[in-house]
Amino acid sequence: MIYFRSDYSQGAHPEILDALVKSNDVHTDGYGLDPLSDEAREIIKEHIGRPDADIHMMIGGTSTNVTTIAAALRPYEAVVAPLTGHIYVHECGAVERSGHKVIALPTEDGKLTPAHIDDAWLLFEDDHTVVPRMLYISNTTEIGTVYSKAELVALREACDKHNMYLYMDGARLGAALTAPGNDLTMKDIASLVDAFYIGGTKNGAMIGEVAILLNEEIADHYRWMIKQNCAMLAKGRLVGVQFTKLLEGGDNSLFYEIGRHMNLMARKLKEGIEAAGYGFSGQSVTNQIFPILPKSLIEKLKENFFFYEWAPYDEDNAVIRLVTGFGTTEAEVNAFIAALR
Amino acid sequence: MIYFRSDYSQGAHPEILDALVKSNDVHTDGYGLDPLSDEAREIIKEHIGRPDADIHMMIGGTSTNVTTIAAALRPYEAVVAPLTGHIYVHECGAVERSGHKVIALPTEDGKLTPAHIDDAWLLFEDDHTVVPRMLYISNTTEIGTVYSKAELVALREACDKHNMYLYMDGARLGAALTAPGNDLTMKDIASLVDAFYIGGTKNGAMIGEVAILLNEEIADHYRWMIKQNCAMLAKGRLVGVQFTKLLEGGDNSLFYEIGRHMNLMARKLKEGIEAAGYGFSGQSVTNQIFPILPKSLIEKLKENFFFYEWAPYDEDNAVIRLVTGFGTTEAEVNAFIAALR
Amino acid sequence: MIYFRSDYSQGAHPEILDALVKSNDVHTDGYGLDPLSDEAREIIKEHIGRPDADIHMMIGGTSTNVTTIAAALRPYEAVVAPLTGHIYVHECGAVERSGHKVIALPTEDGKLTPAHIDDAWLLFEDDHTVVPRMLYISNTTEIGTVYSKAELVALREACDKHNMYLYMDGARLGAALTAPGNDLTMKDIASLVDAFYIGGTKNGAMIGEVAILLNEEIADHYRWMIKQNCAMLAKGRLVGVQFTKLLEGGDNSLFYEIGRHMNLMARKLKEGIEAAGYGFSGQSVTNQIFPILPKSLIEKLKENFFFYEWAPYDEDNAVIRLVTGFGTTEAEVNAFIAALR
Amino acid sequence: MIYFRSDYSQGAHPEILDALVKSNDVHTDGYGLDPLSDEAREIIKEHIGRPDADIHMMIGGTSTNVTTIAAALRPYEAVVAPLTGHIYVHECGAVERSGHKVIALPTEDGKLTPAHIDDAWLLFEDDHTVVPRMLYISNTTEIGTVYSKAELVALREACDKHNMYLYMDGARLGAALTAPGNDLTMKDIASLVDAFYIGGTKNGAMIGEVAILLNEEIADHYRWMIKQNCAMLAKGRLVGVQFTKLLEGGDNSLFYEIGRHMNLMARKLKEGIEAAGYGFSGQSVTNQIFPILPKSLIEKLKENFFFYEWAPYDEDNAVIRLVTGFGTTEAEVNAFIAALR
Repeated sequence: MIYFRSDYSQGAHPEILDALVKSNDVHTDGYGLDPLSDEAREIIKEHIGRPDADIHMMIGGTSTNVTTIAAALRPYEAVVAPLTGHIYVHECGAVERSGHKVIALPTEDGKLTPAHIDDAWLLFEDDHTVVPRMLYISNTTEIGTVYSKAELVALREACDKHNMYLYMDGARLGAALTAPGNDLTMKDIASLVDAFYIGGTKNGAMIGEVAILLNEEIADHYRWMIKQNCAMLAKGRLVGVQFTKLLEGGDNSLFYEIGRHMNLMARKLKEGIEAAGYGFSGQSVTNQIFPILPKSLIEKLKENFFFYEWAPYDEDNAVIRLVTGFGTTEAEVNAFIAALR
Repeated sequence: MIYFRSDYSQGAHPEILDALVKSNDVHTDGYGLDPLSDEAREIIKEHIGRPDADIHMMIGGTSTNVTTIAAALRPYEAVVAPLTGHIYVHECGAVERSGHKVIALPTEDGKLTPAHIDDAWLLFEDDHTVVPRMLYISNTTEIGTVYSKAELVALREACDKHNMYLYMDGARLGAALTAPGNDLTMKDIASLVDAFYIGGTKNGAMIGEVAILLNEEIADHYRWMIKQNCAMLAKGRLVGVQFTKLLEGGDNSLFYEIGRHMNLMARKLKEGIEAAGYGFSGQSVTNQIFPILPKSLIEKLKENFFFYEWAPYDEDNAVIRLVTGFGTTEAEVNAFIAALR
Repeated sequence: MIYFRSDYSQGAHPEILDALVKSNDVHTDGYGLDPLSDEAREIIKEHIGRPDADIHMMIGGTSTNVTTIAAALRPYEAVVAPLTGHIYVHECGAVERSGHKVIALPTEDGKLTPAHIDDAWLLFEDDHTVVPRMLYISNTTEIGTVYSKAELVALREACDKHNMYLYMDGARLGAALTAPGNDLTMKDIASLVDAFYIGGTKNGAMIGEVAILLNEEIADHYRWMIKQNCAMLAKGRLVGVQFTKLLEGGDNSLFYEIGRHMNLMARKLKEGIEAAGYGFSGQSVTNQIFPILPKSLIEKLKENFFFYEWAPYDEDNAVIRLVTGFGTTEAEVNAFIAALR
Repeated sequence: MIYFRSDYSQGAHPEILDALVKSNDVHTDGYGLDPLSDEAREIIKEHIGRPDADIHMMIGGTSTNVTTIAAALRPYEAVVAPLTGHIYVHECGAVERSGHKVIALPTEDGKLTPAHIDDAWLLFEDDHTVVPRMLYISNTTEIGTVYSKAELVALREACDKHNMYLYMDGARLGAALTAPGNDLTMKDIASLVDAFYIGGTKNGAMIGEVAILLNEEIADHYRWMIKQNCAMLAKGRLVGVQFTKLLEGGDNSLFYEIGRHMNLMARKLKEGIEAAGYGFSGQSVTNQIFPILPKSLIEKLKENFFFYEWAPYDEDNAVIRLVTGFGTTEAEVNAFIAALR
């Protein structure tokens, strides 16, 4: 069975695993208050060009989203997200459980624009309604698209106009920043958003993400918020060790190498599928692709490949999702393309 | 200044005020556990044809919605509502504060249909997503439309198919059940929904609503839920006294008389506005109407009339909301129509 | 049956009822944004000597507590209360439902002291624990005692030392400020606490309380918090009308007259019970008293009097609670004393 | 620097690390729905003697507590815990954030008894108070004591009498079940509680705990609850691999070997400290000990040893906490004892 199911179907990238093994016997204090986490913090601060950033070792993406949103908002404040946004659909109501409305708006391509913000403020307007106070975007989006620098700048300006926080979910930031045509850098992001996180789990790490807070209001007592939201890892140093390995070397680091590899494998898959005469749903440019295939072919493919059946399409065809990971090989890609014939 | 601002701009209907005055000196136990509340309960049970109903004296509409939703749902369960639904827009995130997602769907006319339920289940489908478990509808809707019996039966069947609760917000139930063309009765509602409330505040009462639970699962420990959601009135008997006065006499009772009066006044307003050559937004058949008027005229009207400026329309015109109440007089209606010329 | 069950067993004091009747037909805007509520605000500001106070018409005590606590605290912050505190025991977990821990500490007499604050900070000390950020006290306490001015000053100083808010639940503030030996005034309170509320329900009003915010941090967007916590009364003017009647005339107003009457009736009850040879639990000086009576006598008294059986005492005796209200008469008091013989 | 700071100051026990390395390249589905997690489930079911158990791979202790409590309780229900309980003190209000009161009661030794349950029900008694519905105990307790079989049976009976769930936090279950004098087995626990978790983080695992649900009511939709409470690990298989390694071999497995080692190292420390003439706070029999030492000595020890300064004692002395871990060596223990002289 060949896996195109997700970018988290294996343990860790070999170099990361090696770093975990090498640091295993070291004793440190817990909860991310240790030299191994501090080392990662220094490397990240340098890389994002923000020595003032407040940086935290986190367990996972959902808990990072919930913690950051809850840290930023007062009870009557809400977060605006795309209808496809992870916090709206795929976190089982975790944000609402922490008390905040997610105002979900339809989009063309999984991306929010300044017009969305205006729409939210038209509906939520007085003391009987929540106050839209944070914008939640994902890069890559949940459907594989990426934000350009101009788009992010426009969102920053719109947020400033409405006194809103701008927050980026970077679960797949590695794939985003190495996508063909991408013109954003980590430094750009760190200069434009109030908070974001760099995803490890879907970019070669065994576990963990790093939350980066650029706004003091959100950073205030953030460790208390982490603890309360069940996101404090006893052995926080595990995340530190991994992110040191991922990001040391900056633009040439393993983090980007993994992103590039995943995107390349996805592009080869895509080209092969196109060559076989099939089309796609959406405009993904990263490591998730959404081919439209005949249902009979899908059934056949399922014998040897493991993937997600994404959505119905028409009577004869359906959309599947193929995802490449750090360990996806060219042989696996070729096997899939061969199976299409 | 003549008020078409809301249906709660005066104290209480004179007969209700009289009932409060007459019962004022009686001593009773608190929190709705008293003979005056029990008397209301008996009258209501008889009127709705459900001697098994669990009936509670409530402080207000938002707290009744929140209490009932929180009583019905487990943490991962969500409530489906129209995009115009009171719980989605105008309760300042109270439902989310109690931990539950409101899945808000666009509608033609403020009313949900079985197709909306199917849409919700398509998106929220597995153990990463909330479970749509309750349908929230308002009758009248927030924009003045009403459900027919056939529509309510269809929703009941769709809810049964998906194992969902059906809950009706009856803040303006008096206006709904006396609307022209309405074919629903209180007995129909009580036989079709899992819970609903009868609104007093917007139908001549000084304060209070009555929650009616027809499903034992929702009724279980409901008093604890009321207390926890700040909706337990120390002097619950106040609500009892008012609802006895409102509903004694059943189909001919003051409750319906007030509804009919408000609808009649609104219809006369509407006819006068139409005769003056203006159109309306939406298809309200009850005591809220939404005329589209020239902005200059609106400015002029504001000198003598108090109403809500509802929404932009086009460059020259805007939508206003006019609401009639138990105390609206024909003279007030005529004054408005005269002012249009 | 004679009621010593509570101070909310009747409707409203006749003068308050009269004020509601007289203002009944006036049209106003809703939600406390009306001239009748504004009039009450002005009278209250004058009376408390704080023209800068932010004043809100509220539905009830529990919702006022929850709204104020939730408005003041960030998610990881907690409120310190006595073990007997209303928010700890008798609000069915409403504060916790809004997300905040209530740190409950044992007391001698229902009152907190600076030492309690130190205790709380000893246990809750780092980023794994909540931050004690608000002190909740009730005056009268839930067991009938009152705070002296010196005690309140000491709490203010302790709160300042720890950067904590001081909040007073004034459900029975009328009884407190007219208690024998009381040396606190409304002005004192308004100069020492960050927020408090003046109780109407237990002091002659039909419904309603008034929240008074003296700290801008708590006042910020408080109306949104009211709405979200289900505490926004559509006909807010009802509370305004009642509090104007209660507090016009300041120190000689109906508010204090009712408090003095209730305390006097309770004192006469107490003296009669003592003269009959029975003792009391606690040191109440206000309108709740807690006689220790033989169980057999209690059974006999229940035939003609309605009261609360408070707590076990020993094999033969138990504690009951007697409460006097605005309408308690000397004849009712004498009847009880006579029944003891 | 020698660490007696915690039992989570190193990565993973070498055998566990080895298991992670060996399974690293395997592709599996995510979220604990994989053969590696299933293998752990089978081993655990066998070991606890409950083939019907519902078993989940969890990220950490706090999230397991919160998820299980929130899965079990309705909104008005509360959990009873010792004042020293982890959920009361050291989870930063996470349980309250999920909406539930923690009723914290003082204990002699960190352990609850049936009398505590009676106390809780005396105070929380009617529809104005929460309903005590779950008992939370930790084994070992947070201060190193353990429950006997007779004590656990007595709690089960008391819970049954009051219709309460019994839940055991097993963060340090390995140390508990290998403590001198312990007479409880994993099978006993699984036959007496409604839910418990087996701690990995503090017993040699790199990360992760296993939640074991023996009551269908708690197990219902538990995966949704995990996701909502941010406790769903994308690579759930990591926990599976580790627990297979920990528990394969049952009573002779690595899990118990690590517990025995930690307890032995702590006992040797204790004996050395006693021999040096110092006493202890509490009666720990497991891998946390609480010596009372002169403050000047503590300052000296801090130069070479890293430990937690636990509590003040008297003017000259203070209590420290020493914790042994899977990697603590006899040489480290001896170094500490030597340093006392």
